[in-house]
Amino acid sequence: MEGKEEDVSLGANKFPERQPIGTAAQSQDDGKDYTEPPPAPLFEPSELTSWSFYRAGIAEFVATFLFLYITILTVMGVNRADSKCATVGIQGIAWAFGGMIFALVYCTAGISGGHINPAVTFGLFLARKLSLTRAVFYMVMQVLGAIVGAGVVKGFEGKTFYGKHNGGANFVAPGYTKGDGLGAEIVGTFVLVYTVFSATDAKRNARDSHVPLLAPLPIGFAVFLVHLATIPITGTGINPARSLGAAIIFNKDLGWDDHWIFWVGPFVGAALAALYHQVVIRAIPFKSK
Amino acid sequence: MEGKEEDVSLGANKFPERQPIGTAAQSQDDGKDYTEPPPAPLFEPSELTSWSFYRAGIAEFVATFLFLYITILTVMGVNRADSKCATVGIQGIAWAFGGMIFALVYCTAGISGGHINPAVTFGLFLARKLSLTRAVFYMVMQVLGAIVGAGVVKGFEGKTFYGKHNGGANFVAPGYTKGDGLGAEIVGTFVLVYTVFSATDAKRNARDSHVPLLAPLPIGFAVFLVHLATIPITGTGINPARSLGAAIIFNKDLGWDDHWIFWVGPFVGAALAALYHQVVIRAIPFKSK
Amino acid sequence: MEGKEEDVSLGANKFPERQPIGTAAQSQDDGKDYTEPPPAPLFEPSELTSWSFYRAGIAEFVATFLFLYITILTVMGVNRADSKCATVGIQGIAWAFGGMIFALVYCTAGISGGHINPAVTFGLFLARKLSLTRAVFYMVMQVLGAIVGAGVVKGFEGKTFYGKHNGGANFVAPGYTKGDGLGAEIVGTFVLVYTVFSATDAKRNARDSHVPLLAPLPIGFAVFLVHLATIPITGTGINPARSLGAAIIFNKDLGWDDHWIFWVGPFVGAALAALYHQVVIRAIPFKSK
Amino acid sequence: MEGKEEDVSLGANKFPERQPIGTAAQSQDDGKDYTEPPPAPLFEPSELTSWSFYRAGIAEFVATFLFLYITILTVMGVNRADSKCATVGIQGIAWAFGGMIFALVYCTAGISGGHINPAVTFGLFLARKLSLTRAVFYMVMQVLGAIVGAGVVKGFEGKTFYGKHNGGANFVAPGYTKGDGLGAEIVGTFVLVYTVFSATDAKRNARDSHVPLLAPLPIGFAVFLVHLATIPITGTGINPARSLGAAIIFNKDLGWDDHWIFWVGPFVGAALAALYHQVVIRAIPFKSK
Repeated sequence: MEGKEEDVSLGANKFPERQPIGTAAQSQDDGKDYTEPPPAPLFEPSELTSWSFYRAGIAEFVATFLFLYITILTVMGVNRADSKCATVGIQGIAWAFGGMIFALVYCTAGISGGHINPAVTFGLFLARKLSLTRAVFYMVMQVLGAIVGAGVVKGFEGKTFYGKHNGGANFVAPGYTKGDGLGAEIVGTFVLVYTVFSATDAKRNARDSHVPLLAPLPIGFAVFLVHLATIPITGTGINPARSLGAAIIFNKDLGWDDHWIFWVGPFVGAALAALYHQVVIRAIPFKSK
Repeated sequence: MEGKEEDVSLGANKFPERQPIGTAAQSQDDGKDYTEPPPAPLFEPSELTSWSFYRAGIAEFVATFLFLYITILTVMGVNRADSKCATVGIQGIAWAFGGMIFALVYCTAGISGGHINPAVTFGLFLARKLSLTRAVFYMVMQVLGAIVGAGVVKGFEGKTFYGKHNGGANFVAPGYTKGDGLGAEIVGTFVLVYTVFSATDAKRNARDSHVPLLAPLPIGFAVFLVHLATIPITGTGINPARSLGAAIIFNKDLGWDDHWIFWVGPFVGAALAALYHQVVIRAIPFKSK
Repeated sequence: MEGKEEDVSLGANKFPERQPIGTAAQSQDDGKDYTEPPPAPLFEPSELTSWSFYRAGIAEFVATFLFLYITILTVMGVNRADSKCATVGIQGIAWAFGGMIFALVYCTAGISGGHINPAVTFGLFLARKLSLTRAVFYMVMQVLGAIVGAGVVKGFEGKTFYGKHNGGANFVAPGYTKGDGLGAEIVGTFVLVYTVFSATDAKRNARDSHVPLLAPLPIGFAVFLVHLATIPITGTGINPARSLGAAIIFNKDLGWDDHWIFWVGPFVGAALAALYHQVVIRAIPFKSK
Repeated sequence: MEGKEEDVSLGANKFPERQPIGTAAQSQDDGKDYTEPPPAPLFEPSELTSWSFYRAGIAEFVATFLFLYITILTVMGVNRADSKCATVGIQGIAWAFGGMIFALVYCTAGISGGHINPAVTFGLFLARKLSLTRAVFYMVMQVLGAIVGAGVVKGFEGKTFYGKHNGGANFVAPGYTKGDGLGAEIVGTFVLVYTVFSATDAKRNARDSHVPLLAPLPIGFAVFLVHLATIPITGTGINPARSLGAAIIFNKDLGWDDHWIFWVGPFVGAALAALYHQVVIRAIPFKSK
């Protein structure tokens, strides 16, 4: 118990002062000051009888609903105006996506882990941070929340306007190839999921006292930054629930033609980020038990 | 040395490491490490003889005054310019509202709880976080502060300009129905009050050490984000004091016709958020004492 | 010593859980858990023989130099462009002022207290947080830094351009009276200095565990927010060193005519904020020793 | 209960309460509560046999790759649009650079120290925070990452578009002299490296409990702010790897003619910042061992 508490101490630096700034990562596994959590089982039957399991799903549903609602409404507000100058602009759209992830991760991290994104769930599942049962349940709830969120926006905007302004659907913009779009989704999701892994790392939580425990803020910023860069290419998906919800409510060929990109890209990006963090950064496979 | 390290530990983590990321909310109520505060009484006579009660009211008055002053002045600066490009833009308006809530919650949280919004007061009252006496007193002070704040802006801008540019009043924009406006206010206030509940939760303060205690920042961001999304629909109220203050100083039919929406919407949204947090997330009614 | 450490504990809540959210400020002075620092002497001769005193002055000089350099350069970049759309815009100017204050307060808070503004120094002096000697020394260094900062920008931009685009000087914009300008400076500085007092309060540092110790961030945001609102009125001073530095380097009647406003306004605003915080919020004069 | 409270105290404050606000830096070296780390050796042979050394290099490579990818893609998105209003704008570019540094420093600080910039590495090397071996290795990896990052953007945008819109390369804009450009790079890098030193100072980490340990945020903001100010002058380098990567992939005279400025400027600025922090602020050379 006492030992547990030391795990999360903030400021307790057990390493030479010089390390954190230049080289915080000398190999000191022999005297580890943190506990690598055991991998989650694929199926954890006890979860299914626990209220917290269903509550977590509800929290993912509500969060993804609010995410789509605020972001797609912002997109529609920008798209329907005659002059972009009289709107919050493309930058405002990027803030809406990134800011909502910041606020929602902050609000739901303690309930469901705050995924709000099947790609994040997939990446964490690959790292065995949650069971397969839970991963599938989360993804289903995220997609349902996204559909309802986009649907409410369509209700507000009216069918005509919503369809005319593309309904926040993701597709590869003219002037870019499908390969560009796929690549943009892969690297963009890598940025996001890599940030998620870094921000929630057990080792750094224990060790790097000068890197504060602000997980939701850099995660939200990662989403914001990817939007700044790739809105001109794909509108930025990096979240299959967001892309599918918008596609279903928009429901035109334009939204469906490239839709596979917004599942393959994020899942590949998330897998690469999980691989990079677990194998290269943490070297977990090479550690003797 | 050991003692040193314990000094700086942030939030002892008594739960398996894996939980926070995937599923931080296993039901462990038997060994609770936090204290659910008792519900506030409806009337707490001792409050009325305490200076801190009146000081809290003054703090709410001053904060709401500053809130309206900065935000409505920003709105007027954008509206009176010939080109929106030569102003801080609609996005700048959203920053003004959200940023002021961040700064003011930060400044007044220790004095009055930092509500600055009757809908927040109402939501917290429903959750029995403060007495009815205090709730009513706060709301009155908030409305008075809002009236003075909008009044000062009108003094700076001049009656003609202020009226011509709508004085920052809330109304449903052409192209949207009253139902759209009401819905936008309900969901928008839900986002805000849900964030307030999440950020000030006794349970998470005790438990989720890796979710830092940055309450004012996500609360301010929630306000910013709702403005990004719903300025085109209602100008964004989600704060009856802000709406009433602007309506009284503006005092034209345009400001009064839809005014009920900016009370009913925020109060319904706050009630839903209180319900969601207390019943679904915290399951308070189902817990045996 | 041990007691001292408890003063600054984060998370240790000695009060009923309900208080922080609804009413964090019950009068509990009898069992105070914090130490009100004694007022600083007017003259502290020992300061003058200490290297840290001069270092603090140098830090104020360098910080104010960097503040004027970055902000006035940003202003010039916006002003000299043919289209505001091809610049960071007025909102970008507001970010430059607010963001620099955030970064510089963060960097210099441990060296000089991070004032970077004679109005802040004046407000803190009124509250007896520093000696008169130190206050005067800081103000002189701030003004010198501001002059050099604006001078470097003029060197980069060239005399013609700098003069043509008003050199970042503060003056009351056409369409507003001098009274409007004075009022805007008073309230604007009140917002800033009130935030400074709130963010550095000994009592809240000790008590309000859920309000995190993020002082530089809300202080920077306060500056950003005031700029959003009052750039159209005065260009926003709320910092006499910034206004004087720009006026001296610009050196035209336009910059000098209203210059008194940018000293009287900020000093009155800072005095009101000190009064509000010390007398109303902290009730220091009414406390028995 | 008492034990509980000590668990969560943040940064024991051993100094008179008044100090932090007015004058946090009285000379109290006799009773130092922090350890000045010893200077790093020029060559540390043991590093070369450690996996963490190579991992740190990989982390610098990946981070600089992601940095260039996101930022140059954002620049291209703004440059190729017909109207800047339909893009994230110049301010969005500044956010991309600053935001990525925030997120990447956050993610890599625990692995490599999070430099992502040869000027930062150079400044920290001058202060003897890392060995020469490591400094050179980091710079090589940063440059390689930058080249690949810019290359991927060129692949997405197509050779014609990339060349036509200057490929995010740094050069001195028409209307400014080479001296202006050099000066802008020097002062800009000073702002960044000064912030890095301030944010990672061993002394302040130990002492100034009220200045929270948010290192990555002010560092990211410093980059954002310098971009706000100097994009119109040089496009803003302050990072030789970023400038070289873009120049190599762009590979036109326009990118190469001023290229020396983007090495000399940042290195001079970093050296001045190291000098200012180590000699003036910390007075390290004057301290007896």
